Formats: sequence, structure tokens, C-alpha cells
Amino acid sequence: RYGETESEDMVGVVTGLAWTEVGGEILTIESVMVPGKGGVKQTGKLGDVMQESVSAALSYVRSRAISFGIKPTLFEKRDIHVHVPEGATPKDGPSAGIAMATSIVSVLTGIPVRRDVAMTGEVTLRGRVLPIGGLKEKLLAALRAGITTVFIPKDNEKDLAEIPDNVKKALKLVPVAHVDDVIAQALVRKPEAIEWEEPPEPVVPAKPAEAPAPLAH
Amino acid sequence: RYGETESEDMVGVVTGLAWTEVGGEILTIESVMVPGKGGVKQTGKLGDVMQESVSAALSYVRSRAISFGIKPTLFEKRDIHVHVPEGATPKDGPSAGIAMATSIVSVLTGIPVRRDVAMTGEVTLRGRVLPIGGLKEKLLAALRAGITTVFIPKDNEKDLAEIPDNVKKALKLVPVAHVDDVIAQALVRKPEAIEWEEPPEPVVPAKPAEAPAPLAH
Amino acid sequence: RYGETESEDMVGVVTGLAWTEVGGEILTIESVMVPGKGGVKQTGKLGDVMQESVSAALSYVRSRAISFGIKPTLFEKRDIHVHVPEGATPKDGPSAGIAMATSIVSVLTGIPVRRDVAMTGEVTLRGRVLPIGGLKEKLLAALRAGITTVFIPKDNEKDLAEIPDNVKKALKLVPVAHVDDVIAQALVRKPEAIEWEEPPEPVVPAKPAEAPAPLAH
Amino acid sequence: RYGETESEDMVGVVTGLAWTEVGGEILTIESVMVPGKGGVKQTGKLGDVMQESVSAALSYVRSRAISFGIKPTLFEKRDIHVHVPEGATPKDGPSAGIAMATSIVSVLTGIPVRRDVAMTGEVTLRGRVLPIGGLKEKLLAALRAGITTVFIPKDNEKDLAEIPDNVKKALKLVPVAHVDDVIAQALVRKPEAIEWEEPPEPVVPAKPAEAPAPLAH
Amino acid sequence: RYGETESEDMVGVVTGLAWTEVGGEILTIESVMVPGKGGVKQTGKLGDVMQESVSAALSYVRSRAISFGIKPTLFEKRDIHVHVPEGATPKDGPSAGIAMATSIVSVLTGIPVRRDVAMTGEVTLRGRVLPIGGLKEKLLAALRAGITTVFIPKDNEKDLAEIPDNVKKALKLVPVAHVDDVIAQALVRKPEAIEWEEPPEPVVPAKPAEAPAPLAH
Amino acid sequence: RYGETESEDMVGVVTGLAWTEVGGEILTIESVMVPGKGGVKQTGKLGDVMQESVSAALSYVRSRAISFGIKPTLFEKRDIHVHVPEGATPKDGPSAGIAMATSIVSVLTGIPVRRDVAMTGEVTLRGRVLPIGGLKEKLLAALRAGITTVFIPKDNEKDLAEIPDNVKKALKLVPVAHVDDVIAQALVRKPEAIEWEEPPEPVVPAKPAEAPAPLAH
Ligand SMILES: [Ca+2]
Ligand SMILES: [Ca+2]
Ligand SMILES: [Ca+2]
Ligand SMILES: [Ca+2]
Ligand SMILES: [Ca+2]
Ligand SMILES: [Ca+2]
Ligand SMILES: [Ca+2]
Ligand SMILES: [Ca+2]
Ligand SMILES: [Ca+2]
Ligand SMILES: [Ca+2]
Ligand SMILES: [Ca+2]
Ligand SMILES: [Ca+2]
Repeated sequence: RYGETESEDMVGVVTGLAWTEVGGEILTIESVMVPGKGGVKQTGKLGDVMQESVSAALSYVRSRAISFGIKPTLFEKRDIHVHVPEGATPKDGPSAGIAMATSIVSVLTGIPVRRDVAMTGEVTLRGRVLPIGGLKEKLLAALRAGITTVFIPKDNEKDLAEIPDNVKKALKLVPVAHVDDVIAQALVRKPEAIEWEEPPEPVVPAKPAEAPAPLAH
Repeated sequence: RYGETESEDMVGVVTGLAWTEVGGEILTIESVMVPGKGGVKQTGKLGDVMQESVSAALSYVRSRAISFGIKPTLFEKRDIHVHVPEGATPKDGPSAGIAMATSIVSVLTGIPVRRDVAMTGEVTLRGRVLPIGGLKEKLLAALRAGITTVFIPKDNEKDLAEIPDNVKKALKLVPVAHVDDVIAQALVRKPEAIEWEEPPEPVVPAKPAEAPAPLAH
Repeated sequence: RYGETESEDMVGVVTGLAWTEVGGEILTIESVMVPGKGGVKQTGKLGDVMQESVSAALSYVRSRAISFGIKPTLFEKRDIHVHVPEGATPKDGPSAGIAMATSIVSVLTGIPVRRDVAMTGEVTLRGRVLPIGGLKEKLLAALRAGITTVFIPKDNEKDLAEIPDNVKKALKLVPVAHVDDVIAQALVRKPEAIEWEEPPEPVVPAKPAEAPAPLAH
Repeated sequence: RYGETESEDMVGVVTGLAWTEVGGEILTIESVMVPGKGGVKQTGKLGDVMQESVSAALSYVRSRAISFGIKPTLFEKRDIHVHVPEGATPKDGPSAGIAMATSIVSVLTGIPVRRDVAMTGEVTLRGRVLPIGGLKEKLLAALRAGITTVFIPKDNEKDLAEIPDNVKKALKLVPVAHVDDVIAQALVRKPEAIEWEEPPEPVVPAKPAEAPAPLAH
Repeated sequence: RYGETESEDMVGVVTGLAWTEVGGEILTIESVMVPGKGGVKQTGKLGDVMQESVSAALSYVRSRAISFGIKPTLFEKRDIHVHVPEGATPKDGPSAGIAMATSIVSVLTGIPVRRDVAMTGEVTLRGRVLPIGGLKEKLLAALRAGITTVFIPKDNEKDLAEIPDNVKKALKLVPVAHVDDVIAQALVRKPEAIEWEEPPEPVVPAKPAEAPAPLAH
Repeated sequence: RYGETESEDMVGVVTGLAWTEVGGEILTIESVMVPGKGGVKQTGKLGDVMQESVSAALSYVRSRAISFGIKPTLFEKRDIHVHVPEGATPKDGPSAGIAMATSIVSVLTGIPVRRDVAMTGEVTLRGRVLPIGGLKEKLLAALRAGITTVFIPKDNEKDLAEIPDNVKKALKLVPVAHVDDVIAQALVRKPEAIEWEEPPEPVVPAKPAEAPAPLAH
């Protein structure tokens, strides 16, 4: 049944957590690769802030591609499509950032995501995890959906006092300050860095005594 | 007469089911290929959610092209145009997702769609079929239009109790959890996977002892 | 005088029929080819639905180009511009679809359109002709403009009962179910199909025992 | 002084005629060529209808380039910029169509426009000249600005009865049905057609017995 | 202090004059070249009319590049960015046109602008200078800012009667009818024309007796 | 904890200062490079004025690339992404200009930014630093966040009288008139200029006696 966790570990499928006035809810994030040229497509009635958070997550992953074992040349022939079902429900906000980054790394590396984890946290371009709202409602939703482990922002640790004991007992809560800590633990195996060297640039002769370059200054 | 099913099995033409306040209605989805570069065009006064559901259906099909027997290189020289007549009537919502996916696979493989089937269901980027609304009204519309088989989301099985017995008797209802099950049964023959191998990448020499790559991190 | 039919058969110029609250009116559709890359430009204050109907008509023609004797490579060096004078009058609706398709085939084949015919009907991506409104007003306008033959949708035959006898006597009315029937009769000669063969694809070696392709699934 | 005619015949500069509630006014249309790829830029606070009329005028000229002595390859390395001073005054409507076409032919051929002529008339994609409003006010404005010859649409001849005799005496009024008649007389010399032949297409072998082409139909 | 003139002659920096309800003000226009492909970027909260006046100024300069000593090929590898500080203040209107053109010629030729001059005037695509409003307020602002020479439109000479004598004494006012007169005097030295010849076009054989070209007409 | 300064010097991460009705606040600016073609992406709910200030900062850096030791060819294979967390908070205004420029130089050179500095100031295309509002509130926010050095616009020196003595004692305030002074001091080491020479242009033969070039004038 939709709204529960998957029955197997899947590539590119991550469970995020949303929070509305009527309570928490799980949010499935899906990514696939299609032939392309490094572009990104986003669907699922995403608001501007959520769209920007996909964009930031993708730039983080691209700027650190080799540390995740992703060849930079992969982006020359693939687009990424990020979709958040259910397509008729508007979604917004930055708190799915770490889930977006995890989904993207999963699909680019082919390493499945652990189906029993959920996560919430804004991510910056440098991979820092920023705090989010609605922690209690989100954790209750995770519990209802059969999740066992939830990654939360380190800066939300102060909110743990308000979380009911039975929730804290049933869920393994993992505070994280950096998205790399999420990726290392939420995928079924940790991505391994590769060696990569840029093709050497063509030599440009520079003659010290020459006139100034044509760019005005 | 328009509003009834086709008189022969056709490539790219799929019967979807819509639901409005005044009842159900059949919705013809048409796709053709034209010379292009992997783009998609959508017409028929489609709302944003329906446009996104075409986009998600297409990405699903592209990400799984070889399993449907579609050469990935086909997208380098073809665009797909998806149209939903009647052009002056606004249409929206995600529930034509599986019909979109089926239409796209049909046109890309050249395998006709069975003219006596209809279908309703949202599709995710991974091919999961999500539940829809208005099942009863949609089934009545299918019956009126001469349909014999309707694919419905597995998660809508719970709604079958409310469907009149004569409808359930007259229509073969096929609950599906994955769009591949629809495609396998709604086309006149099941698409067959092909072997496909990416052209080998140019070798890039990687020297372990080298300085860090120029991407900042 | 503008608002009457042309004095000679012209390439790309088709008489459509419009219908407003104050009566029917003829609508001239003009197309030309200009150097380009397969794009389409639309002018004449066309509403979204009419723009989409041009787009659908063009895709129909492109998907069937060889059956109309049009070399697919023609689209690699030509754009089509469709214009509906008078430029300050807003126009909308899908009922000029078959006129758009006829104009496009005329300009791409160089075969003139018979100047004494008019036509009305929505066209689908598969060339089906769908019914339209305002048949009586449109036929009266055609009569006033000196038209002798009008193509109407087969699904509008039921409305012929309301058409005054003098109109039915003065105009040859041709019910059509498919746009190809219009094109065959409205042009001064029927386009003839050509043989066409795609250049062979470069061979890609496929080794059965190989690992899965890099697209995730 | 601006608002009067130029003191010499200029390339690309044409005097149009506008009409507002407070009277007629001359409208200078200017075009230049800049390095580019066949695009068009429009400035001068032009409304949508005027922008579309520039677009239609340009397509007319491009579709007939060789008859005006313009090499089609010129569009591969030039853009056209059409500007209507005064930049802060909004302008709209289709009646500058023939002035736009004349300005574009002038700049593409390098033949100056006669500085003592003005013109008004909508132009269709096939070069037909359609009637306009405000003829009297426009002619009075032309007279004030020192114009001696005005091209008007043939379909406006019926309005000449309302024009004061002194105006008809002072201005040479030239009714025109086709824009080519304007261009032949408004430029300081008539453009001459060139011979032009498309480079031959690469031969594509067509084998009659072959399977159908990959485009679905 | 910002709002005063620069302390040295600078490339691409021109002093324009703005006029609001609360008085006149100087407006610094800055341009730089960056690697690119002939595009233009505009920043500084510019309204549509001011953006169009930048566009017209640029097309004027490009259409006359060789007369200013600018190689047309320069546009193949450079973009121009025009900025008007202060970025939070909305600016609009066409009267900075000649300042835009001067700034662009300065940056493309590398010739600095005289720091003691200011200018106001709309520019047309042919370089004509059109009259502006608020002359008195603008001249007072120029005086306050330490300007010694102001270029004004020839068509504004009639407004000089209203300018206080002390202003006319303190400022050298230069009426101009063409932007070339501004550029020749406002830069620290007059740009010199270069010789330039287009690379010869590939020969296209034209056979007089041949069939018509494939463009329909 | 977010809202405090970083614990180490980082590449591309700069502390700006914002000012709202409820007080000052630090604003982290982050930039990364990703594979691309000289484009820029901006996220973090930035208003139009802030987006333009990123654009101006980038053009300043690009126009002066070699003086910062940045090879112009770097822009041929990299895009820059500038992000300002927290993604759900709208941000606007030009006063982060010098922080944007510093972040961009840092990421393009790979030289880290000193983690104990903050800065505020609009930047022009020529690198001039313009004054900003809310100096007192911004300095208080810097103090709270553990900053030790703040770059402020030279034109804001007049506002220092209103700043409490304890703030002036605790913070080293550095008035700057040009962004190069910020960059030289805010990075952990000053960028060094490189020699750069444009590849020689292909020779174009110019024959003095030839006819005019085909561009109209
Ligand atoms: Ca739900
Ligand atoms: Ca949005
Ligand atoms: Ca219907
Ligand atoms: Ca839409
Ligand atoms: Ca009419
Ligand atoms: Ca529209
Ligand atoms: Ca005027
Ligand atoms: Ca417009
Ligand atoms: Ca100011
Ligand atoms: Ca604007
Ligand atoms: Ca904050
Ligand atoms: Ca914005």
C-alpha cells in the first residue's frame, strides 16, 4: 500500500518526511537517470523552495562527484529526473534536502537505499545539514510507516526533549551535521571515492613582455 | 462516433478514464513520433499536473527503454508528441499516468494497443501504480464506451465493494501494482527486452599520486 | 475584397470557418516555409487552443510525411510560419484543425489548395476529424463568401437537419472522418507517397554475457 | 526636428502612420542588420499585435527572398533589429505591416527608401494588403510631416470620399492590393530577382521492397 | 563619494542624467566585456524601456562596428554586461540611450570616457538623438556633481531659454543630432574606422534554365 | 550551530550581513563549481536585486579574471552555483555584493576565506564599493556570531559615530572603496595575477580599395 515503506531496498528511492498542519507524513523521493546532457527535471507539484533544494542537492553531489565514486563524465550523457509522488499534492520547503541528495547519489552510483530509513534536513551547497520544523510530527509519521531509523539534523537535538519516549525507543534517531554522514549510512553500502584526473589543458604560450589582454579593466 | 472505442487496434492510442462532477468519461490519449532530439510536446489543454504525469511516464519509459525493446539511440532522432483530444476541454490530474506510459511504449515499439481496454492509475518514476478517485464513475463510462477490460490500481481494490454487480460482471477488472503489468497485457503483444551496450568510454589516465582535481570541495 | 475567396488557387492558403455570437465568418489560414530547422511560428492573435491545434496538425503531417510525398529531411532546413489574418482580431478554438493540416501539406508539397472549398473540423494526432459547433452559421458564411464545397466532420451529419434547404442545395457538403480525405480532395491534386528509407544505424556490438547497462532500474 | 521626414533617402528607415484618439501621427520604422543567425529583435515598446506583424512581414520577405534579390544564405549570418522610436511611447496594431516589410527589404538589399513616402496597411503572409482604420487622421499627419506620396490599402478606397479635397490634392495616394507594389515604388529603385539554386541533397537510397520506415502511422 | 564624478577617465564608465519628481540626479552607466558569444546582460533594476534602449544602442554600435574600429569578430567571443548602480533603485526611460551607446563603444574599443562629461538623449537605431524631458533638473544635477560638459539633444535647444544663466555659464552645453558626435567628443580620443572585408561566400552555381527554388511562393 | 561562524577557513563560504526590521543577522554565502559552460545558478529564495548583484559580482570577477589568477578558459567547462541558506527565507537587496564577489573568487581560485571576517557593501561592475543601510544592526549581528573583522563601505564611515564603543572595540572595522581590497584581505592569501595571452586571431585580408562591407549603414 502506498504510504508505507518499500518491500525491498531500491535505487534512487528515499523516504523523506513532511509536516503539515494536520500532522506528519512520509514523502517518497524518486530519481531516475535518462539519456541527456547533465540537466535535471523535477515533477510532483514542487514549490519553488523545494525545487531550489533539489538544485542545491544536485550541485553538492556534482561538486563532490569523485568522492562518491561518480565519474564527472556521466553528466555529459545523462539527465536526472527527480519526482515526488503523489502528483496532485503540492509540496514545498527545504527540509527534504538531504533526502534529495541521497536519492541522487543512489541513482548515480547504482547503490540502493536502505528501505527502513527515513530522513529530514535542509542541505547547504557545502553539505551542511540545517535544522527543520515539525520534528515530532515527522517522527510519528515515520513510526506509522514502519521506519526503523531516522536521520535528523544535529541542530534539532534540542527538540528531542519533546519527543514521546515510546517514539524514541522505537526509532533509532541519528543526528547528523553533514550530508556525507547520511549518505554513508543510508545507502546499503558506502560509496567509494575514485581517482580522477582532468584531461590536460592545451598549452597557451604566455609572453611576459606582451601588451595587455583584450579584456578591459 | 467520437467517445466510443476505436474500431481497430492502433499504435499509440490508449483509452484513459476521466472523472468530473457530472460523471465519468473516456479520455483518448494519442502519441506520435516525429523527427527530433528526444523532446516531448503536449497538447490538448492539459493542466500542470497532467503535464507532469506525462513527463514522469516518459522518464520511466526512457530509464527502462531496453527492457521494452527500445533502442536508447531512438531518442536522438525522434520527439514524442502526446495529445489528448478534444482540444478545447481542459484536462488535469495524475490518473492518466499509466495510460500515458502505455501510449508512449506503444508508439516507441510500434506495437498496437488493444482497442477494448481502458485504464486508470497514477504512475511513479519507478513504475509503481498509485490509487485514483472516482472509480465507480470511470467504470460506468468504460462500460458505456464498449470497453471490456479495465486496469485499475491495486490500492483501489478496497473500492470494489461499491461497484454495482452488473458493472463488475460486464467488465474484466485487472488490479495492477506496477505499470509493467499494464504494458504487458494492454499491448497486443508483450514488448521484448533487447541487449544493449554503451559504447566504451575513452580511457582517462588516472595517476594515484596526483594533486586533487580542480573541483573545489 | 478581403473576406471573399481568392481569385486563384494558391499554395498554403486555406479557407476555414469561424463562429461567434454574431454569426459565422470565413477565416483565411496562410502558411509559408522559411529557412529554418523544423520549427513553427504562429501569428494572428491565436489563443492557446488554436495554437495547440496548429501544433497537433503539424505533428500529424510530420508523422505521416512520406505518405504525403514530403521528404522528412525537408524539416531539417525549413521552418513553417502559420498566420491567420486579420492580426488584431483574437481567434481561438480547435475547429480550424483540418484547415491547418491542409495548409501545411499544401505548403510542404507545393500543391495549391482549391480556392472554392472551405472546411471545419478538429483534428487529432492520428488524423481523426472531430465534430465542431456552429455548423449552420459557418455554412451561411461560406455561402456568402462564394464557396462551393465545404468539408464537415462526419460526426456533424446529425446537425444537417437544421440547415436550410437553399444552403444545402447551393453548397456541396462533404462529411469526412479522417483528414486524409480532406487533403486528397481539397488540394488541386492528391499528394503521392514517396519511398523513403532511414540511413542505416551505426552497428553497436551487443555481447549477451555482459554486465547490465549503466541506466539504473 | 523629430516628427518630420528625413532630409535624405535612408536604408531601412520607413515612415508609417499611426492613429490614436487624439489624431494621426507619423511613426518612423528603423531596421538594421547585425551579425547573427537569422533572428529578429524588436524594440520601441511594441504591443503583441505589432510584434506579430513584424514577424509576418519578415516571413513574407524571407519566403520570397530571391525575388527581392536577397540571397537566402544572408540569414545564416545576420539578425535583423526593428525599432520604432520614441522608445517610451507604447505602439500596437497591425497597420504598420507594409512599412515593416518595406523597411526589412530595404535593409536586406541595401536600397534606400524614398524619404517623401509614407504608408499604412496590414500585410498577410502572402503579401496581401488588408484595410486599416483612421485613414483621414493618418493622411493629415502625413501632410503635416511633409510627405508627398502615401500608399494605402486598396480596400480603403471606399473611405476616400471622406477625405478633404485639399488633402487629396496635396498628397499622391496610391491604393495597393499587394505589398510587392509598395516595395517596387517606395524604394529608390526596384529590387531585382536573382537566380538561386539549393545545393543538391545527399542521395538517399530507396529500396522499394523494404520494410516500412520507423515512423509510426 | 558615490554620486560624484570619477577621479580618472575610465573605460566603459559614462555619466548619464536622470530626472524624477524630486529633481535631477546623475546616473553612472558601467559596461564590461566578459568571455561570451555576442550576448548582452543588463542589471541595476532597469525597466523595460531602459532595457530596450540598451538593446537599440548596442545594435547601433554593432551595425556600425567597423566605423568605430571594432572588429565584428570580437562579438563572437565576448558578451557585454551593462550595469547601472545603485542596484536597489528602479530606473527606466529611454533618455540614457546615448550614454549607453558611448559606454559600449568605450568598452569595445578600450578608449576611456572623459570623466568630466555627462549626457542625456534617446538614441534611435540609426544613431539619431531624440529629445528628452527634465533638462533643467538634469543640468542642475550635473553641476552639483562637478561635470563641466553636457551633451544634450539638438531638439532640446528650445528649452535652453528656461535654464538659469549661472548654469549655462558653468556648463559647456553641446547640442547633438547624432550619437556619433557624442562618441567623437566624449571619449578621450575619437575612435578610428578600420578596413574590414567579409570572408568570400562559397560559390553557389546558379543555372538560369533551372526549375523554381523549393521555397513556395 | 548554524548562525555562527564556521570552525575552519573554507573555500567559497563567506559571511555576509543582512538587516531586517527585527535586527541584523549573518548571511552565509556559498559557492561551488560544477561541470558546465560558464553559466551561473542561484538558489536560496533570492529576490531580483540580489540575483542581479550576484550577476554583477560575477561579471566583475570574469572581466578581471587574470588579475585574480583565474584562467579565462576555466569558464568554458565550469558553471558556478551560488546559494544562500536558509532556503525558505526570502533574501533581497544589493548589499551582499562584495560577499558574492569574494565567494566567487575563492571558489575559482581555490583559496579559502578567513572564517573570522564578515562584510557588507554593494559592488559595481567596476569593483567600486557603494554604501549600505543598517550598519549598526549588522555589526551587532557580526559580534554575536563571533566575527572579529568586518569590511564596510568607505562611504559608510560617516555612520561610525552612531556605533556603540564596545562594538567598535571588539570588531576590527575595515572601510573599503574597492572590492579588490576586500578580496586581498578576506582570503587566507592574496590571489596572484597570471600572464595570459589570447590565441592569435586568424588573419583576415583587408583590401583598402574594396567595396563597403555588407552591413548597412
Ligand atoms: Ca498521502
Ligand atoms: Ca515552481
Ligand atoms: Ca467528450
Ligand atoms: Ca500548463
Ligand atoms: Ca472579418
Ligand atoms: Ca497564447
Ligand atoms: Ca511623437
Ligand atoms: Ca509584447
Ligand atoms: Ca542616488
Ligand atoms: Ca524588465
Ligand atoms: Ca536565521
Ligand atoms: Ca527572482
